[in-house]
Amino acid sequence: MKIHDQYRERVNSCLDSYLSSIPSSPNSDIELRDIMKYSVLAGGKRFRPILTYTVASLFDSEIEKTDSCACAIELIHIYSLIHDDLPAMDDDDIRHNQPANHKVFGEAHAILAGDGLQALAFSIISSDPLIDADIKIKLIDILSSSSYTMAEGQLIDLSVVSKKVDINILKQMHQKKTGALLNCSIKLGAVLHNANENDVSILESFANHLGLAYQIQDDVLDVTTPDNLLGKRQNSDAVKNKPSYPSIIGLDDSIKTFKNLYQNAIDELSHLSVKSDPLRLLTNRLMSRTF
Amino acid sequence: MKIHDQYRERVNSCLDSYLSSIPSSPNSDIELRDIMKYSVLAGGKRFRPILTYTVASLFDSEIEKTDSCACAIELIHIYSLIHDDLPAMDDDDIRHNQPANHKVFGEAHAILAGDGLQALAFSIISSDPLIDADIKIKLIDILSSSSYTMAEGQLIDLSVVSKKVDINILKQMHQKKTGALLNCSIKLGAVLHNANENDVSILESFANHLGLAYQIQDDVLDVTTPDNLLGKRQNSDAVKNKPSYPSIIGLDDSIKTFKNLYQNAIDELSHLSVKSDPLRLLTNRLMSRTF
Repeated sequence: MKIHDQYRERVNSCLDSYLSSIPSSPNSDIELRDIMKYSVLAGGKRFRPILTYTVASLFDSEIEKTDSCACAIELIHIYSLIHDDLPAMDDDDIRHNQPANHKVFGEAHAILAGDGLQALAFSIISSDPLIDADIKIKLIDILSSSSYTMAEGQLIDLSVVSKKVDINILKQMHQKKTGALLNCSIKLGAVLHNANENDVSILESFANHLGLAYQIQDDVLDVTTPDNLLGKRQNSDAVKNKPSYPSIIGLDDSIKTFKNLYQNAIDELSHLSVKSDPLRLLTNRLMSRTF
Repeated sequence: MKIHDQYRERVNSCLDSYLSSIPSSPNSDIELRDIMKYSVLAGGKRFRPILTYTVASLFDSEIEKTDSCACAIELIHIYSLIHDDLPAMDDDDIRHNQPANHKVFGEAHAILAGDGLQALAFSIISSDPLIDADIKIKLIDILSSSSYTMAEGQLIDLSVVSKKVDINILKQMHQKKTGALLNCSIKLGAVLHNANENDVSILESFANHLGLAYQIQDDVLDVTTPDNLLGKRQNSDAVKNKPSYPSIIGLDDSIKTFKNLYQNAIDELSHLSVKSDPLRLLTNRLMSRTF
């Protein structure tokens, strides 16, 4: 099994056992835990946790120490998807090839599931016995500010619907909405193992290129990939009148732009004080992803 | 000025300066910061921060150290009110004598404001330079699990609408929906100053009595207090077919029950290793509140 598949299996199993360990709430018709599980265990690429595990592996081989950060970042990501899919937000009914959370449990339950997941993300790090308190505080500081920035990004996303916008506004939106959490996935893996400031700053620069590349690539794949591979509706940006890189600069230039950004990201890695082959490999795989 | 009013002014001013310190987001039509400010600075009793300051004062006089916890607990409370008021949830249009957040900014923005506030609550503690890392981790652990329990309580609240329920289910709902966060306000104040385990456990027991008393009293006040004093609609429980203590055991028995619970709470305080006069005074004031 390839290392990225191992990381994916690992975070899936950690998420399952973490959510299953939440005590059931007597007298409830339905458990918040189960509403969250429906979305958390629906699959997904687990790209953020894979990034965290990969970056952490550059600095330390003790994989158990990375589990709580890998789970926390995915819980924040899933909470944002549940809230983004709500009728008042992006109004999407399919996610990861299954009905969106609110289509199954109703809007109120979906709002609460997102709220609960955000709280759990902080809880899973604060209660991890393997990490020192001073490191945990740094991790929570990064996670909480990234989670806030992501909400700001979603606000910009809502404000640009049906508008002709400048490529810079789109870039800023992507940096906040998607970039902040990708950046966070990468930083958590480094800070967890007390990486030196210079390495953290190189990884931040790597993350900024990678995050924008990933999102422009998402815009491109939204146009070129069929529903069943995307796990959601094709052409959702165009259908919703959302500006995207292809709609502003065209498909070919968008592809060129994201490939350049991936290359810039890879170039950064040579400056790290540690060997970065696993991260370079992952970046190359991302560049050639088809969904 | 009475000490509780001083605490209220203090937390109002800390919340204002904290939210105002969030950098503005260029290219946004509207700032997430301003949507949050609308609800956070709308007033309110600030009962939770007052509890945190009061408990903290029993153990230490250094009030600056309590500011971040006082703000964090209020941010979690306000986020829950914004989400509870949404049409998909309790569908309330008035809060603190002004239109609910979603009535002014729309549902999507109100969801994001709640999400952002929850993230900020953790951020404000993790970034506080006055508190040691090991204490901060304990505080975040308590805050995150209370925030999760509160979401579970809201789920039960939604499930009991229009149902004939047992008083035990109502009690469990209150303990999760309101009790968890009140309990948290009290524990934060003690843990912040490294109170010994015995004192923390006495305060937990105090908090359990106080939390239930407060909520039953809320049920009573919902029936007996006019809109303008409540800051929201009178009789909202009955209008929404929500079971409440008065609807199950009657108004007189509900009043007796909450008064007894306040007395039980006060009785606990005599076992503390520190002088508890300020907390006794606050409890007595709560017992006689009229809104």
